[in-house]
Amino acid sequence: MFIKNEFDIQFHLSMPTPMMAMLHLHPAVEAAVRAGNELKVEQVDRETKIDIATSEYHDVFGNRCTRFTMPAGAIRLSGMSVVEMEEVADPIHTHAQQAAVEDLPSEVLQFLLPSRYCEVDQFGPIAQDLFGWMTPGWTRAAAIRDWVHEKVAFNYKAARPTKTAMDVFMERIGVCRDYQHLAITLSRCQNIPARYVTGYLGDIRWPYGGPGDFSAWYEVFLDGRWMTMDARHNEPRMGRVLMATGRDAADVAITTSFGNAILTNFFVDSYEVLENGTRVPPLPGIVMEEPVVTAMNRAAADGVVQGLAE
Amino acid sequence: MFIKNEFDIQFHLSMPTPMMAMLHLHPAVEAAVRAGNELKVEQVDRETKIDIATSEYHDVFGNRCTRFTMPAGAIRLSGMSVVEMEEVADPIHTHAQQAAVEDLPSEVLQFLLPSRYCEVDQFGPIAQDLFGWMTPGWTRAAAIRDWVHEKVAFNYKAARPTKTAMDVFMERIGVCRDYQHLAITLSRCQNIPARYVTGYLGDIRWPYGGPGDFSAWYEVFLDGRWMTMDARHNEPRMGRVLMATGRDAADVAITTSFGNAILTNFFVDSYEVLENGTRVPPLPGIVMEEPVVTAMNRAAADGVVQGLAE
Amino acid sequence: MFIKNEFDIQFHLSMPTPMMAMLHLHPAVEAAVRAGNELKVEQVDRETKIDIATSEYHDVFGNRCTRFTMPAGAIRLSGMSVVEMEEVADPIHTHAQQAAVEDLPSEVLQFLLPSRYCEVDQFGPIAQDLFGWMTPGWTRAAAIRDWVHEKVAFNYKAARPTKTAMDVFMERIGVCRDYQHLAITLSRCQNIPARYVTGYLGDIRWPYGGPGDFSAWYEVFLDGRWMTMDARHNEPRMGRVLMATGRDAADVAITTSFGNAILTNFFVDSYEVLENGTRVPPLPGIVMEEPVVTAMNRAAADGVVQGLAE
Amino acid sequence: MFIKNEFDIQFHLSMPTPMMAMLHLHPAVEAAVRAGNELKVEQVDRETKIDIATSEYHDVFGNRCTRFTMPAGAIRLSGMSVVEMEEVADPIHTHAQQAAVEDLPSEVLQFLLPSRYCEVDQFGPIAQDLFGWMTPGWTRAAAIRDWVHEKVAFNYKAARPTKTAMDVFMERIGVCRDYQHLAITLSRCQNIPARYVTGYLGDIRWPYGGPGDFSAWYEVFLDGRWMTMDARHNEPRMGRVLMATGRDAADVAITTSFGNAILTNFFVDSYEVLENGTRVPPLPGIVMEEPVVTAMNRAAADGVVQGLAE
Repeated sequence: MFIKNEFDIQFHLSMPTPMMAMLHLHPAVEAAVRAGNELKVEQVDRETKIDIATSEYHDVFGNRCTRFTMPAGAIRLSGMSVVEMEEVADPIHTHAQQAAVEDLPSEVLQFLLPSRYCEVDQFGPIAQDLFGWMTPGWTRAAAIRDWVHEKVAFNYKAARPTKTAMDVFMERIGVCRDYQHLAITLSRCQNIPARYVTGYLGDIRWPYGGPGDFSAWYEVFLDGRWMTMDARHNEPRMGRVLMATGRDAADVAITTSFGNAILTNFFVDSYEVLENGTRVPPLPGIVMEEPVVTAMNRAAADGVVQGLAE
Repeated sequence: MFIKNEFDIQFHLSMPTPMMAMLHLHPAVEAAVRAGNELKVEQVDRETKIDIATSEYHDVFGNRCTRFTMPAGAIRLSGMSVVEMEEVADPIHTHAQQAAVEDLPSEVLQFLLPSRYCEVDQFGPIAQDLFGWMTPGWTRAAAIRDWVHEKVAFNYKAARPTKTAMDVFMERIGVCRDYQHLAITLSRCQNIPARYVTGYLGDIRWPYGGPGDFSAWYEVFLDGRWMTMDARHNEPRMGRVLMATGRDAADVAITTSFGNAILTNFFVDSYEVLENGTRVPPLPGIVMEEPVVTAMNRAAADGVVQGLAE
Repeated sequence: MFIKNEFDIQFHLSMPTPMMAMLHLHPAVEAAVRAGNELKVEQVDRETKIDIATSEYHDVFGNRCTRFTMPAGAIRLSGMSVVEMEEVADPIHTHAQQAAVEDLPSEVLQFLLPSRYCEVDQFGPIAQDLFGWMTPGWTRAAAIRDWVHEKVAFNYKAARPTKTAMDVFMERIGVCRDYQHLAITLSRCQNIPARYVTGYLGDIRWPYGGPGDFSAWYEVFLDGRWMTMDARHNEPRMGRVLMATGRDAADVAITTSFGNAILTNFFVDSYEVLENGTRVPPLPGIVMEEPVVTAMNRAAADGVVQGLAE
Repeated sequence: MFIKNEFDIQFHLSMPTPMMAMLHLHPAVEAAVRAGNELKVEQVDRETKIDIATSEYHDVFGNRCTRFTMPAGAIRLSGMSVVEMEEVADPIHTHAQQAAVEDLPSEVLQFLLPSRYCEVDQFGPIAQDLFGWMTPGWTRAAAIRDWVHEKVAFNYKAARPTKTAMDVFMERIGVCRDYQHLAITLSRCQNIPARYVTGYLGDIRWPYGGPGDFSAWYEVFLDGRWMTMDARHNEPRMGRVLMATGRDAADVAITTSFGNAILTNFFVDSYEVLENGTRVPPLPGIVMEEPVVTAMNRAAADGVVQGLAE
């Protein structure tokens, strides 16, 4: 199975601004790349496009990172890649065992610690009350994922960059990354190493829901290896294309600009292609309700509507 | 000058649900009411509209409150009022004095204390650093208002019902109530009693910006009486029609439902009329930019863009 | 049964400072007072003690409050009272019913709302998960109290004046007021009106644990009246002497000083006496750790001292 | 100059518990070690002491880490080291330049990002208001350190393991690590890479204040290298002996136990010796309050002990 990924992200800048980006596929996927996987950075506000020089490095988590200085004006970051993947949905490892902490590989231990959006040091009793009585291993890890999926409602409008697992636990509303942060935090509290993943997740062999997006999911360390979990979708999916892993979203921001970068365009897609590059028609889609949920409605779930003046 | 206020708010309910509402004008405005000021509550999902019985009471702040039980189905809360007001914009009392705490009337003291969205107990040093060196009284009170107005950006999408003054101070973005909460908190920290106000604020003799809304502003207690402040608009305005006052938005929610009430319609308007009821044409309007600011842009102001996966 | 209450609280001030105090018994107890119930405020750092003039008022909750200006130097607030009470421990009303919200008296509704230390607007889903399935009324109210008592550990050193119910829920450690804040918040989320109480609670007919302290407990509104709950002690006790009630500790601080007041002495006691005033010997005691009220001093740096009950 | 460091830390455990420790000197100091630098882990509650096997690894920051499983009972972690250091106090680099972000080495970029206790994503506007107008480089970096030192009061009792830079900014009280977290966060917001350091800091050629402690300080990256800053002491000191560096305290906890470890003994000292090992008499001392490390015990209830430096 071949999957093609594309992105076209544009910013407007009023002055030259350094940027870090994680827009390549993860080195672990390198062998599966059949085409592309270049990051093109251009200044596009003149009649002629000008390529911007970039340099690459690997961060402490092994991710492939790019840095460059965006000149003032309109900047485009674009690229595409084709990868070959097995036609296998996220596996279910019902009997996967959770290692005792003393038996975990040393490099995995950091994924038990608190991080910016995962207040492991605050969630201990909450996690213990909810999941402490369960069978360790896959059963408990999957229960955490299911609980988060069940309790949190999706809403794009509820996104904010400073939202932590604790915020999600209280507000019970969020976007992809928020689901994963809460699940990661609860997993770590139960001594299950958990790390955050960004990548592509199109509607591959799945009812079509519109152009894709970068997505976030997470991985738990059971049976001596990392296993995919997704508290947002919570369905075995095909076609996850790995870009970066870290302790949480603070480690793997798609782009980080050191200055005021106004996002003017954000296009991402990921879809199946034939070996010759022809796009495989998507499955019949599902109606995506435009969520009318405003802040007033959000409160309703709590039993109290606070009228928001203005 | 005559001002007409209207509202039509509708909810859908899956089961009977009690509600508290503050949709009358404030008793202090009673003498100026020329028409209306009734709250009509109806079940409207049948062919025939059914009136819902309500009862009234006054809360500890002296506001006129209504309570009733909404039956399941579609419910409409509607009403209108006409008030006669002087053609005077918010006055500027440059020389207004700040009383020593020991000289404040006892009933005003509660407006120095912390409340749900105003963490007076946390802001002391921050307020002291920013404003402690200023001349007490109007100068300092107005400086607090100006600072908040200057530092916080307006964005409907940044609203959430649990947002406190501290959240606003950090995020520097919010809606009307958020501006006032931060300004109230900083004022109290400087021993200036401050209370939260809800009411109508149409574009009265002001460039037209579309149908109005309930608005929030605040009042500070100087020279022995309450004086209007508005950290959101920060312009002397005419036509503020008072509905309720309290320590913060928790005390004066327009509606509070004890159950899951889905907001389906929210129309509010406030405009000038002639004595015969004819609407005075609005002034030429201003273009309201549709704010394209997404969560990614918000972060930009901080110098760091965190890509929001999904 | 007669109970005698005493207090001697001293501050050092570097400049004249206004103070609000709630050091009288509650008006509801007035009829039971047999002696005392005066608040004496003196400047005590000279050879001669000088009485400081005070004035009284009632706040919106009906509490008896005192205000005065402390001159610079050493200030003592002292007083004693004797009340006659029935020899009855906190009653258990197993069958007490929870009224529907629409049937609650209007003046009780405010005790369903969020307040400074009780984030009712954030705890809805948490409360619903934990207690939503239980029989409404006493059963559910007592379950909330028991849960908080069981899950939170007492530690004087964990006190801080800005600690909210959410902080307690996460940290699972606190002092008297913290227990009650969490229980109040969870109760309100379940539509059980709940209010905060401060008063004396000596070891009356109870194993002696040293000189008493101001204490905090709370009340829930069931069967049409307020019933005592205490998530800290969670044992039916005799000899609770009511001082003040409010939405949370922000409303009923024992003392609030508007300036830097250094707490130098804090003595409180409450014990049984015979009608002739002789102290009834305490029961054999239990070893208690030192009750150092450090948090009051910490707050002083912010210009506001919040008395931490217990 | 020779400095001898010692520690003796003991825990009581009710069941076997894995632990991670960072109790060796940093590899960067290796060449200066003249004696010791071993970590001894023993079970000491029997008549015979039993050595516990340990294993070592390096974390992603290059720190030397140890892991082992503590059996139930009483456990002692102890060790000593002697290092030879130059007799130089923390240098002042008045003219050190701040590199543009695009010129920073890639491995330094992570120290501009938010981390668990350093909410860089929330402090942008605050840092900009306070320091944005200052000369970049040493001037601004030192101003941040000075501001934190000036505004925050030291208090052992105010320690808690979940305290973040934002908590410190509001509460203005804390221990060593809290000062550094706030200073690090503000530095990063101003694009000055900053990392957290733990190590020994005895009263070397400094008025004696009692047995030492582990301490925390931080480093800023200017002129192409890391420079020592200490917002807690804010005095050029001799004798800082480096143990570990990381993004914040979450990365470099002295000990992390995965279970309930009760801290029963905590002795640390660091002092000057002659080459023959004789202790150099301390300078005349100053009175210090008791350094009780209570916060470590509190955290134990959560199953994770975070060592609080200083």
